[in-house]
Amino acid sequence: MNSASPNLDAFFQSVRSLIGSKHVVTAPEEIELKSKDTTPETHRPSGFIYPESVEQVQEITRLANKYQVALWPCSTGKNWGYGAATPAQAGSVTLVLSRLNRVIKVDQELAFAVVEPGVTYRQLHQHLEMAGLPLWLDCTDGPADGSVMGNALDRGVGETNYGDHFGNICGMEVVLPDGSLVETGGGPRGRHQSWNTYKWGVGPYLEGLFTQSNFGIVTKIGIWLMPKPEHFVSCLFELREEKDLPLMIESMRRLQLHGAIQSKAHIINDVITFSIIADSPSELLAGAPFLSDDRRRALQREHNVSPWTFAAGIYGTRAQVAAHIKLIKKELRPLGRLQFIDDLQISLVKRMIDWVNRQPQRSFPARLGQVVARLLTGKPFELIRFLPHVHAIEKGYPSDFFVKHAYYKSRKPKPSDSDIDPARDECGLIWLGPMVPLTGAATQEVIDLVRPLYLKYGFDFTVALMVANPRTLIALFSVFYDKSSSDETSRAKNLYLEMGAATQTAGYQQYRTSTLYMPHILEVAPEFKRLCGLIKGALDPVGVIAPGRYGIPHGPF
Amino acid sequence: MNSASPNLDAFFQSVRSLIGSKHVVTAPEEIELKSKDTTPETHRPSGFIYPESVEQVQEITRLANKYQVALWPCSTGKNWGYGAATPAQAGSVTLVLSRLNRVIKVDQELAFAVVEPGVTYRQLHQHLEMAGLPLWLDCTDGPADGSVMGNALDRGVGETNYGDHFGNICGMEVVLPDGSLVETGGGPRGRHQSWNTYKWGVGPYLEGLFTQSNFGIVTKIGIWLMPKPEHFVSCLFELREEKDLPLMIESMRRLQLHGAIQSKAHIINDVITFSIIADSPSELLAGAPFLSDDRRRALQREHNVSPWTFAAGIYGTRAQVAAHIKLIKKELRPLGRLQFIDDLQISLVKRMIDWVNRQPQRSFPARLGQVVARLLTGKPFELIRFLPHVHAIEKGYPSDFFVKHAYYKSRKPKPSDSDIDPARDECGLIWLGPMVPLTGAATQEVIDLVRPLYLKYGFDFTVALMVANPRTLIALFSVFYDKSSSDETSRAKNLYLEMGAATQTAGYQQYRTSTLYMPHILEVAPEFKRLCGLIKGALDPVGVIAPGRYGIPHGPF
Repeated sequence: MNSASPNLDAFFQSVRSLIGSKHVVTAPEEIELKSKDTTPETHRPSGFIYPESVEQVQEITRLANKYQVALWPCSTGKNWGYGAATPAQAGSVTLVLSRLNRVIKVDQELAFAVVEPGVTYRQLHQHLEMAGLPLWLDCTDGPADGSVMGNALDRGVGETNYGDHFGNICGMEVVLPDGSLVETGGGPRGRHQSWNTYKWGVGPYLEGLFTQSNFGIVTKIGIWLMPKPEHFVSCLFELREEKDLPLMIESMRRLQLHGAIQSKAHIINDVITFSIIADSPSELLAGAPFLSDDRRRALQREHNVSPWTFAAGIYGTRAQVAAHIKLIKKELRPLGRLQFIDDLQISLVKRMIDWVNRQPQRSFPARLGQVVARLLTGKPFELIRFLPHVHAIEKGYPSDFFVKHAYYKSRKPKPSDSDIDPARDECGLIWLGPMVPLTGAATQEVIDLVRPLYLKYGFDFTVALMVANPRTLIALFSVFYDKSSSDETSRAKNLYLEMGAATQTAGYQQYRTSTLYMPHILEVAPEFKRLCGLIKGALDPVGVIAPGRYGIPHGPF
Repeated sequence: MNSASPNLDAFFQSVRSLIGSKHVVTAPEEIELKSKDTTPETHRPSGFIYPESVEQVQEITRLANKYQVALWPCSTGKNWGYGAATPAQAGSVTLVLSRLNRVIKVDQELAFAVVEPGVTYRQLHQHLEMAGLPLWLDCTDGPADGSVMGNALDRGVGETNYGDHFGNICGMEVVLPDGSLVETGGGPRGRHQSWNTYKWGVGPYLEGLFTQSNFGIVTKIGIWLMPKPEHFVSCLFELREEKDLPLMIESMRRLQLHGAIQSKAHIINDVITFSIIADSPSELLAGAPFLSDDRRRALQREHNVSPWTFAAGIYGTRAQVAAHIKLIKKELRPLGRLQFIDDLQISLVKRMIDWVNRQPQRSFPARLGQVVARLLTGKPFELIRFLPHVHAIEKGYPSDFFVKHAYYKSRKPKPSDSDIDPARDECGLIWLGPMVPLTGAATQEVIDLVRPLYLKYGFDFTVALMVANPRTLIALFSVFYDKSSSDETSRAKNLYLEMGAATQTAGYQQYRTSTLYMPHILEVAPEFKRLCGLIKGALDPVGVIAPGRYGIPHGPF
């Protein structure tokens, strides 16, 4: 099906009468504004439509079949660095589900929520706080206004023990491509007692079908939440010697397999640390296109930043936390600097930060406060300021704080912490996340494969190694680039594509991908791709849902 | 497609030339022998065929399409109580995969194995022991010669922290209904580095499609194993007052959610305990059709058996185990008798049992030993004998010890512990396992719904509440009946069907089901059933794989 359908006008006309004209956007300048992302190349949709109910989504899907129009469903459209709200094929109509934003249910005892696609991390967090419920959500270090569902359906990874977002989905309601509604789990719809407690249900387990695919539009999910633990500490680790990375990875696997660290630790390299702690990340470069090795080492020394740093939340009773800490110390103390920080220490740190911030900038008291803080902790003030944010996110407090590192190569002044929007501000950033078995050897192999490519294309080597489960990490490589330079944008794109091809060839497939990579992602798995296409052909004969998403073809063949 | 196809003879002829005549069974008397199960009603297959390689499975699938013959794939055929090796539709050909029995790979560091369908718990356990690997598997308390894969694909539940058997599958190789071969995960086949470490892969997650369904024949799986922990204890709990069951369930949920008990505790009622500890379970009845309340209470007193008992494995470092025990004591001590048993205590118990067993039966020293044991532990000797088996299974030692309770209503003498085969011995037993949110109220509701039906049909109320995850338990109701009595067999069947209907109507769907219940299982979920049928129609247009399995229809509609 051609996504620029001749029936498009008629389709928009029908949708306008269905949901109201103000919820249908077709003006080119508005489309352009809403199509922004940080990736080097996106496809323009034909319009944006904003239904407000499941019934409207069903009817729109039926209209799409009638008029042979392709829909690109998204939750809130904040999939920054992967294509945001833009489709895999130009001309598809972006169906934004942000108005379906009800928290339908929270079960305190069984620790789950049922939410619609438009519910954001910020909203769910506030909902739990307002109701005074002892339940913590898991958010990403991405935008606080990102969709809980959208991230989970793209199989994003968060921070805490509940950081496998798809793994913690339990129960889905889905609009199929023909507009019919189905509830997963094989029980009686609307009164299936274990719908949100038992993930597999009865009969084939089908929820996986609706992730990273184009087989339906998910309109409700159950999502498991963490009961507030008796005790919680942040574990902060800084590796002493760069060469010991494989040893640290081996320790991390043992700590994960033995349950001492169950959270999704993000092990970030120095460039990521610099760009997060810097007030204005672009100043780090001092005009250079990327950091020289000398400059990087100088920055390490200046800010007392380690080549690899990670934070991880440790949850449990006081005795459980103490037991986990014991094993963590045994594994990691020989390799670097290990700190454990609890709520009390964080409140002291916060008070210190507040006091310094209240002094006139660069005044003697402000500078004195920073020096004292540095003497007490051995860390520069920027890094200390970073601690409360790390600690908070591990308790499920979403914030945009970490997103600001997307401004690393931006030429515009960084906005205030409460106004971060890298897509709007035309920051250049793209992610590539190959899955790597959690061993020191495999991690080193992937890094050795990819690092020279950064040098070849003239970019800083930037990576966060995210523990996805006790046996796997996602090596999340990021390319920061200056979007206002067409040369740099083109180099960024070429680096990205070459990294993708090189890692795929070596057997390291990506855990999720961008609209830019989607045509290539399943090329290495022709039989799997064919199977996806057979299912696609059966469920969506006209091809109305997200053609091209994750490279899924349209069967039969 | 009719499963009694006119081309059946030609099909068998071709299969004989492919895999050899001795691996094709079509003689009626042999078919009858191989069709035995403990359920009240099974469907006779047209034959049994035993390929030895994936290529043969592919070719047989192609032949099935050519001759329009239905196949009923099973791994080892020990799915006792759910239909064993018999098909949902009479006349299908049972495809037994027991000769595909290679342990293809064990990765010690990443703690997983890759196995074929015929690999049994006993075999995998011996494989790990022989290689001296510090890895524990999770088995069920069912047959030791059951298939690791078969149980996981039917989403069976085991004993340890790795007891969610499907949840611990990572990576599948599947023969599709057209005979083509596919590897899940979306990576390059045969060299996808995270195939067995990252469950979701890239693109739609499709492994769930091949569980409790008829969309393909799985020929390899990766299965995660538990790294041997530093320390391990069995936790044994006996509830004091029957009325406190809901309180105990509430405690269990909290202990699971907070990670103090992560294993799949089986909470068994008194009748199950009696039938496991009894040397000859049928003697308990003393000729009566079922236990009167008086007799049940007398047996409770005589054997010092609690109304509800559970065992659970606690794994970790010494400090982690101690921390978990602290929370367990806090929750459960007020409700009953709590014991923790480690390897040392078990070796003492074993020595005591061995000593008693070496004395002439009913001799003075033997009886004295039993009395001393009872004085030391407060438990009858039968229950003490039971302990090492419980402790062993929580370390992944498969055994048939627990299977012998299937002989409860058998009129034949129970065979020795090493020769248990309830299907061969024509024991009557059928399971019904509704999924129940892990709350005291829901558990009590399901029990109150089902218990009167046992009385109505004249059977002992027997149930094991298996914790499936921190939010769900499976109330595994068992009906023991005398298969040699047609009246009792018919009452057992009616009880089973009425329990199934009553629990489904109340919204408690089953976690898996028998061939007898398959026509009804998805009746309560018509939209879900239709979706399954659409997929079935696309992947298996001729309908060669397991027609009728889990009530999946054949679309399009």
